[in-house]
Amino acid sequence: MSQVRVHNFTVSLDGFAAGEGQSLESPFGHAQGRLMEWFFGTRTFQAMHGQDAGSNGVDEAFAGNWGPGIGAEIMGRNKFGPQRGPWTDEEWQGWWGDDPVFHTPVFVLTHHPRPTIEMKGGTTFHFIDADPADALALAREAAGGLDVRIGGGAATVRQFLAADLVDHMHVALVPIILGRGEPLWDGLESLEDRFTVESVASPSGVTHLTFTRAR
Amino acid sequence: MSQVRVHNFTVSLDGFAAGEGQSLESPFGHAQGRLMEWFFGTRTFQAMHGQDAGSNGVDEAFAGNWGPGIGAEIMGRNKFGPQRGPWTDEEWQGWWGDDPVFHTPVFVLTHHPRPTIEMKGGTTFHFIDADPADALALAREAAGGLDVRIGGGAATVRQFLAADLVDHMHVALVPIILGRGEPLWDGLESLEDRFTVESVASPSGVTHLTFTRAR
Repeated sequence: MSQVRVHNFTVSLDGFAAGEGQSLESPFGHAQGRLMEWFFGTRTFQAMHGQDAGSNGVDEAFAGNWGPGIGAEIMGRNKFGPQRGPWTDEEWQGWWGDDPVFHTPVFVLTHHPRPTIEMKGGTTFHFIDADPADALALAREAAGGLDVRIGGGAATVRQFLAADLVDHMHVALVPIILGRGEPLWDGLESLEDRFTVESVASPSGVTHLTFTRAR
Repeated sequence: MSQVRVHNFTVSLDGFAAGEGQSLESPFGHAQGRLMEWFFGTRTFQAMHGQDAGSNGVDEAFAGNWGPGIGAEIMGRNKFGPQRGPWTDEEWQGWWGDDPVFHTPVFVLTHHPRPTIEMKGGTTFHFIDADPADALALAREAAGGLDVRIGGGAATVRQFLAADLVDHMHVALVPIILGRGEPLWDGLESLEDRFTVESVASPSGVTHLTFTRAR
């Protein structure tokens, strides 16, 4: 059975995965780049942007697991773009340029479906109004036996955790206090009972936590 | 100048330092012993209870810093006991028996002062209605040039952090989701700007974070 995986999902010490005030200029709101600094330095991030550079250390050991074995992604509408409510135009094709980093089908959860967008490089954005289980069934079908990544944001990851649909989750904990934003842990009391949790600190200051579903 | 220190202060992944429903039977509320398990195994905790036992590993390296160099403690009234509001009797002398672990003056912050209690072994409980700065002045005086420990609970540590009175803080992060309880990080947005933060993971599963005041 293919697995459902979360990777490189980054939260502050107070549990926020993004700041307040997401906009076209500030995809992470008032958190700006502070949550993802550990990731920017990795070989995986650099390769996503066509650079042959970046670290091969602890951070990369986790970052690099993001792609291999993944056949589809599910993301929330707030990850796809800063717009809210009905689409006022359909020009917006995501933050990732004309050749997005995904190279697989991507299912965008939204109450406002719109036509599928085929991008360069194998990324296809499908817009669906579905609950986690139904979205996962679609993504599994599209993944052709490979794993499905839950790409975020916080509300989407939370919903899949609450529905007990996640097999593996990697969380990077950044020792900053955002104070406000998109909470990851709300409503997930005793989540640890369903997972084996391990942690390792990186010289970058981030602590990597892995949640492996207990069988 | 003596330093103001916080040690072995333990929070869940969602930032709670104690659960909901603190009572005589459950000092940590619904969190019960889950937050402090890492500490129970250390040589420092075992020695507090008269045992020549316990680990000497990463957890002990942090736990053992709790005592040396400390001349006084400040604690909140909720750490001293489960009662709330005016004292209905003055029989309660804390959770720690007749020879408490502190062996120094201890200043208990309360809106309901009561007479000082002298315990065995050098612990004296003083009950004062004071703001953080005034309480610290009293504790510094009593500490005779040694450091002052802020003993918790969460609201007390938060007040001293908000007033920028803490020089060193050790936080142990336990990878559990409590869901509700006493929050440590509320109102402390961008706390990291005032500190150098380091972290190390322990085989026990806890991540130890140190906050050292940036000078």
